[in-house]
Amino acid sequence: MKRPIGVIDSGVGGLTVAHEIMRQIPKERLIYLGDTLRCPYGPRTKEEVNKFTWELVEFLLEKNIKMLVVACNTATAFTLEELQSKLNIPVIGVIQPGARAAINFTQNNHIGVIGTEGTIRSNAYNKALQSINEDIQVSALACPLFVPMVEQGTLKGEVAERVIKESLIPLNNNKKIDTLILGCTHYPLLKDTIQRVVGEHITIVSSSEETARETSIILDVHDLLNQGNPVYDHQFYTTGDVGIFTKIAQGIFNSSIDNLQAVRIEKAVI
Amino acid sequence: MKRPIGVIDSGVGGLTVAHEIMRQIPKERLIYLGDTLRCPYGPRTKEEVNKFTWELVEFLLEKNIKMLVVACNTATAFTLEELQSKLNIPVIGVIQPGARAAINFTQNNHIGVIGTEGTIRSNAYNKALQSINEDIQVSALACPLFVPMVEQGTLKGEVAERVIKESLIPLNNNKKIDTLILGCTHYPLLKDTIQRVVGEHITIVSSSEETARETSIILDVHDLLNQGNPVYDHQFYTTGDVGIFTKIAQGIFNSSIDNLQAVRIEKAVI
Repeated sequence: MKRPIGVIDSGVGGLTVAHEIMRQIPKERLIYLGDTLRCPYGPRTKEEVNKFTWELVEFLLEKNIKMLVVACNTATAFTLEELQSKLNIPVIGVIQPGARAAINFTQNNHIGVIGTEGTIRSNAYNKALQSINEDIQVSALACPLFVPMVEQGTLKGEVAERVIKESLIPLNNNKKIDTLILGCTHYPLLKDTIQRVVGEHITIVSSSEETARETSIILDVHDLLNQGNPVYDHQFYTTGDVGIFTKIAQGIFNSSIDNLQAVRIEKAVI
Repeated sequence: MKRPIGVIDSGVGGLTVAHEIMRQIPKERLIYLGDTLRCPYGPRTKEEVNKFTWELVEFLLEKNIKMLVVACNTATAFTLEELQSKLNIPVIGVIQPGARAAINFTQNNHIGVIGTEGTIRSNAYNKALQSINEDIQVSALACPLFVPMVEQGTLKGEVAERVIKESLIPLNNNKKIDTLILGCTHYPLLKDTIQRVVGEHITIVSSSEETARETSIILDVHDLLNQGNPVYDHQFYTTGDVGIFTKIAQGIFNSSIDNLQAVRIEKAVI
């Protein structure tokens, strides 16, 4: 089954999911579309996120994808169920995988979640966690500065560190959580700094890594894994600036990935 | 969906999978059947394992299970594909989950696998790992003493330690692996000793934990998760001695599990 997997995101954050999929199921081919121009989705209304997400999906459906990965927590929170009910290919979001992994890791059933305002406001992680285990207690915190910071390429250094430290004060005042879900696919790019700020005793769950793993399982369940030779011609599209997209993408993928292309599309999506 | 999940094993090893399912998806109800009387399956022929496994499955199908977990590596290696093609409920084995997790953890693409003679002889892990990533190198080792040792209740102490140490000499002489799959559901009961023997630098993957996680995912994909109140009346059956089964089961489950029953069945299965 050599048809590609489609990955959508509000910008570059979903590249962390794409990278993990390429690492964990290297025989699969990806088509990625990041809506950099309209990023961030976090502060937008449900209606806006829903409309934008469907535009991204329509673009990828024309590429004959065999599965859709919604690599954006905000889009997952607002549109996953609708996509799953209306599309006739498997659709996976990033919230359930992170929730399931956190439930596996936590010892004291106190789980923290950080994400965009939209994701936190939607209560999607609370619902996902507590539908699996009613005893889970959730401490959720919106970190509205993280996505714009990542999208402009500020991934480490003094400014990044100070922003993260100040944003996470409410979380650090909460001494109970033993597991922290990075409930936004941009956040793995800040993982080292976040780990330093919260301390080594807290297990950080990257929804990107976990989503890649579930993508592999769901392709397997539907008998859609590529059984033949690897297919390497991944394609990357952005609705925004090609330069910054390419720079961040090259930072995420190692140098062995030489087939990375950023193509600016406008009318197709916007 | 309050129908139970069926779990089968050649003996008590699958209880490590059952325990993880109860921990990770606590609202689900389990029915467990361990073929203690005919354990171990490891040295048996493919035909025998296939016949025995189908007998266990028939018993559980009459209990109206919504999903089947083959919590035995040997049975998975020899019968999973047939079960998946013939049953009209989802069927999961323990090999793919362990393989996927190991691929997630390994940094150097060298993975070790220990299991019964049957599992190792079947090459099931090599196939599973290399079908996902052709670059994975696998060092496989049969450890025929481990299952009988666990089934008689020897889980730690001097004898257990000596048996494990001597069995793993070929693996310890192989300096390359960075990840070791416990390719038998009995082995998590020996995990601490195995970790001491191989060293802390090797990541040990428990197929039990990973299989529980995939069970959760597959139930979710098929919309079979229990959305209502938790259902706690798990049932445990063994074809063999009730006393030793109960003793090992109580060692695996913590004291909060007070609804554990071991029921000896004979004609139903044998």
